[in-house]
Amino acid sequence: MNDSLSNIETPVAIVDIAKMSHNIERMQARMHALGVAFRPHVKTTKCVEIASRQRAAGARGITVSTLKEAEEFFAAGFDDILYAVCIAPAKIHHALALRSRGCKLQILVDSAAAAEAIVNAGTAAKHVFDVLIEIDTDGHRSGIAPNAASLLEVGHMLHQGGANLRGVMTHAGSSYECHTEAALQAIAEQERAGAVRAATRLREAGLPCPTVSVGSTPTALSAAQLEGVTEVRAGVYVFFDLVMAGVGVCTPSDIALSVLTSVIGHQSEKGWIIVDAGWMAMSRDRGTEKQTIDYGYGAVCDAHGVLLRDFVMSGANQEHGIISRRDGKVDEDLTLRFPVGTNLRILPNHACATAAQFPSYLALLDNGHSKTWPRSHGW
Amino acid sequence: MNDSLSNIETPVAIVDIAKMSHNIERMQARMHALGVAFRPHVKTTKCVEIASRQRAAGARGITVSTLKEAEEFFAAGFDDILYAVCIAPAKIHHALALRSRGCKLQILVDSAAAAEAIVNAGTAAKHVFDVLIEIDTDGHRSGIAPNAASLLEVGHMLHQGGANLRGVMTHAGSSYECHTEAALQAIAEQERAGAVRAATRLREAGLPCPTVSVGSTPTALSAAQLEGVTEVRAGVYVFFDLVMAGVGVCTPSDIALSVLTSVIGHQSEKGWIIVDAGWMAMSRDRGTEKQTIDYGYGAVCDAHGVLLRDFVMSGANQEHGIISRRDGKVDEDLTLRFPVGTNLRILPNHACATAAQFPSYLALLDNGHSKTWPRSHGW
Repeated sequence: MNDSLSNIETPVAIVDIAKMSHNIERMQARMHALGVAFRPHVKTTKCVEIASRQRAAGARGITVSTLKEAEEFFAAGFDDILYAVCIAPAKIHHALALRSRGCKLQILVDSAAAAEAIVNAGTAAKHVFDVLIEIDTDGHRSGIAPNAASLLEVGHMLHQGGANLRGVMTHAGSSYECHTEAALQAIAEQERAGAVRAATRLREAGLPCPTVSVGSTPTALSAAQLEGVTEVRAGVYVFFDLVMAGVGVCTPSDIALSVLTSVIGHQSEKGWIIVDAGWMAMSRDRGTEKQTIDYGYGAVCDAHGVLLRDFVMSGANQEHGIISRRDGKVDEDLTLRFPVGTNLRILPNHACATAAQFPSYLALLDNGHSKTWPRSHGW
Repeated sequence: MNDSLSNIETPVAIVDIAKMSHNIERMQARMHALGVAFRPHVKTTKCVEIASRQRAAGARGITVSTLKEAEEFFAAGFDDILYAVCIAPAKIHHALALRSRGCKLQILVDSAAAAEAIVNAGTAAKHVFDVLIEIDTDGHRSGIAPNAASLLEVGHMLHQGGANLRGVMTHAGSSYECHTEAALQAIAEQERAGAVRAATRLREAGLPCPTVSVGSTPTALSAAQLEGVTEVRAGVYVFFDLVMAGVGVCTPSDIALSVLTSVIGHQSEKGWIIVDAGWMAMSRDRGTEKQTIDYGYGAVCDAHGVLLRDFVMSGANQEHGIISRRDGKVDEDLTLRFPVGTNLRILPNHACATAAQFPSYLALLDNGHSKTWPRSHGW
């Protein structure tokens, strides 16, 4: 085991810097080959040190999921920020405050009601907001359909109301449900074509649309071409996770985030190893439940990160995880093989959810040393 | 809506102090009637202000799920603390440090291996640890069975090794799966009888066992009698949640924790209201999934906290919740009834998990004012 991990109090969120760097380089090289700018979504890591590495690799700007992230990353020197959740009217004054301090914050709408609130706030403050319209390209959540009449209504309302209409963005979140290359390429093309179609309609109506922003980790890694797209966003690729392995865009060995835990007991006759990482550490995310391989609450590795394929975290209470054999068999030598005090590493179903349970990461360097990297929490 | 909630940036974890106080009084009165001490589990709230109210109502000591909680509550003046997770050997030095500073921290084991580690650490430091043995009274997780030979082995090892054997504790976590009064009374009696049986065996072997500690919210609220028990522990009762309502030990109107959220859009043709509380706010806990009433990711209330029984949070992404009718019908007037900017409150499936997503609570006083109460995060 890495020197810096011996006698550590668990659970700890471990970042394998070498694996993470490989993931960052892989995505950036792909974006370069596809001829688009890349704007990573920092909602996965919420960590300035990691976003700085994404920027150093070539990313242009960041995407955030909350205004608290915008505040913290702006304070750390990131000024080109897209807040990729349709803004609640009560948050517009906060966006204005950020922009007044020099943050090039772009905000998002998918309704005439929100567009009107932005126009009214902009008029009252004599401020020109940068606004994108969210496009719904797969029906999984929010956004305006590419061919809907309301797209032009919202576009005209923003443009005539004095906002700076920056373009369109979409997120094909349903790509998480794919697990074949053909399906991934199809959803990536659907995401691209829908966003480009919406942009074309806006432009044909005489409205500006310089930005066509698309993305999710599966579509970003699967798109055959991105004609008409100006930028791609993705978040979870930086760590990857078991869900992404199930989708097929990485392997478990690419996963850069794991939870270090300690064996605290056994129920030998049941074949259970009890560890001190429960759902408070792993999160309640069961994203692999409906995939081909169900990992329970996480895949089990030894302290060096080597996958123990026979075992999964089959149950979780708040501070207790239950590890057992995938096949339900009971190993006779469980207490000898995994005595109390043994360290294990658990790979997460969903890195965004697991990382959120920790105030900081322990980032492991190749030389055996480690650093503590804080992450943002709350709103 | 409460005055202090207008124009607030959502999501926010709201604590209804009046409801919480009622829950605290209800539990304490029951413990008084049953003639046992009460040691609340602060893992639910991780909040000193709330634990102080539990203490003021009559609680004696607290239960914690992590040594970080022990540190933070000890710093806030709580010195009688039970760490109710079997201790990992690498944490014993931390427990020793807390005890050396005057914290009456009790630690827990359910194996000879952990008992040996405590004895060795105590011998090396010339320190007498206060130790409880965890008893497994329902097979749901950790602990030694009441009649197992290893109970006496561990007891003798601790006692002869110089530790202060304080007794036994058990947690019948399987009570969360009950939903009839008969089943609840039966599991409460099973929990009591198992702990008392283990205590009797230790005493008959000449070992000390002053403490017989049992508890979970369902069993604490259902036990017909607690003969032989000295103290009860429970955590989630202070807030309650939808799972506890499904178990039958509270009603949804007793739930003191809710997440205030804002409508940020609609997909009218699908009958979806999109809000800014997703799984990052609610947690991924789907504890009501297997209960009689499945609330999705939470029950929907208006801004005043009045339950809108027709609606549930049927889907959740990181910062997006999808609210729809329980019956799947599409309301024609959804955008008029819940326009963008509308505030709603969502009751959680599992209060421990939802509360953990927030750095602080907004505690609402009866006079319309509010206070911010911080909570502990991480390990």
